[in-house]
Amino acid sequence: MVVILDRIEQASTAAQAGVPALIEIDSDGHRGGRRPDEPVLVEIGRILHAKDAQRGVMTHAGENYNVRGNAAHAEFAERERSAAVSAAHALRGAGLPCPVVSVGSTPTAHAARDLIGVTELRAGVYMFFDLVMTGIDVCTVDDIALSVLTTVIGHQQDKGWIMIDAGWMAISRDRGTAAQEVDQDYGVVCDADGRVIDDLIVSCANQEHGIISLRLGAKGPLPELVVGTHLGILPNHACATAAQYDRYNVLLSTGGALKVWHRFGGW
Amino acid sequence: MVVILDRIEQASTAAQAGVPALIEIDSDGHRGGRRPDEPVLVEIGRILHAKDAQRGVMTHAGENYNVRGNAAHAEFAERERSAAVSAAHALRGAGLPCPVVSVGSTPTAHAARDLIGVTELRAGVYMFFDLVMTGIDVCTVDDIALSVLTTVIGHQQDKGWIMIDAGWMAISRDRGTAAQEVDQDYGVVCDADGRVIDDLIVSCANQEHGIISLRLGAKGPLPELVVGTHLGILPNHACATAAQYDRYNVLLSTGGALKVWHRFGGW
Repeated sequence: MVVILDRIEQASTAAQAGVPALIEIDSDGHRGGRRPDEPVLVEIGRILHAKDAQRGVMTHAGENYNVRGNAAHAEFAERERSAAVSAAHALRGAGLPCPVVSVGSTPTAHAARDLIGVTELRAGVYMFFDLVMTGIDVCTVDDIALSVLTTVIGHQQDKGWIMIDAGWMAISRDRGTAAQEVDQDYGVVCDADGRVIDDLIVSCANQEHGIISLRLGAKGPLPELVVGTHLGILPNHACATAAQYDRYNVLLSTGGALKVWHRFGGW
Repeated sequence: MVVILDRIEQASTAAQAGVPALIEIDSDGHRGGRRPDEPVLVEIGRILHAKDAQRGVMTHAGENYNVRGNAAHAEFAERERSAAVSAAHALRGAGLPCPVVSVGSTPTAHAARDLIGVTELRAGVYMFFDLVMTGIDVCTVDDIALSVLTTVIGHQQDKGWIMIDAGWMAISRDRGTAAQEVDQDYGVVCDADGRVIDDLIVSCANQEHGIISLRLGAKGPLPELVVGTHLGILPNHACATAAQYDRYNVLLSTGGALKVWHRFGGW
């Protein structure tokens, strides 16, 4: 176990309890952490080191989810690297150890041009990708490896609705694309083989029902999908969707039997 | 197992598979179901009954979440009862069995004045209540029996933020009060004994961090809550919040040891 902290009181508690710690560094003013030039950083490091609990520094430039494209993400990657490496330098300059220099987020992990001085790169969504990542050009829709399997259970033709047995309990409430250029509502609809069906999205999610309809401005008509048709829903946010489940059903691109990967829950 | 269905194709499949079924009745035009006077209702009943799979009817007037107060909910309760009982009457009139006449939702369960002809009342949120129910006057904040225990982990004083270790993974992404008269953001903040702290809400939730701040128009200043303070967060929607966990930690109002209730997941 390692705790992440950025305050003197927390460092004292962790040190007393003998719990090793990483000091959180603020690389983008997003939420928490200490800036690398704050004198309190070394003070925290000393408290931890006195009980052999000082393991290093970590940062996460969460603001990079709000910018689009490789060049913008590369800039954030350099901000993460430079903040973490400067902080490590300040600690080492004061005679303190700093074996771990940890940075990361999925966009910066894909855009970083220089990782000198970094010892760990943390990225979460990268293993599946999702629509939020698509929306900021980190991947394409075809790269998304996680979908929710669902079945058509009804229609309300006068309303232009196709009803499915996956609501927000299955897809999650995450609407991460709501603030992006293209709002994907509750997800993009694919056929059972994972091919995107043009302009079809989950426009509404109740607890156990989802409603599929055409995107505003769609060119074609609502496709005929009879009751019983299997569909896949690509999620806004892979973390939130996966957290609704205790396992993954894994299909290999090479074919072969379904594999089951168990998840651990909690945080 | 009982399936709920409202289409001829589904009835045929259920009957062939020998799976007992309830026919869904539309009592408020909200989503799915057959109106009690549709001839197809009896047709579905016959298909099921031919294989001894016809168990009854069910309805859920989900639209009642959008109206406020006991009188309005009582009206929806009567709509649920009247639709389900009429449908049962139509089926029985055609010589078909209809042992189950099932209605329900938490607001109508609390407001119903007459349940003649009903054999089952389904309500989910009623066992805990939540802020959505508070917002439509089904309960008060003090009636809410579910909260997320969290700890203060930091402050950003210049921003008016108190940071906690509960983000949307702990609270859920549900923002059911967003469209209500009082938007409670990601939840109302209580002390560790469950007493509401005036005007304090979770104004922002990241994956594993929450940010507490004063509600717009708050009268007092931000309270001083030191790092390590335990707080409880009352959720927008008990179903969504509980679904993030595999167990409940139960505190009895009479005191005594903590009990653990295990949950089952899935849907």
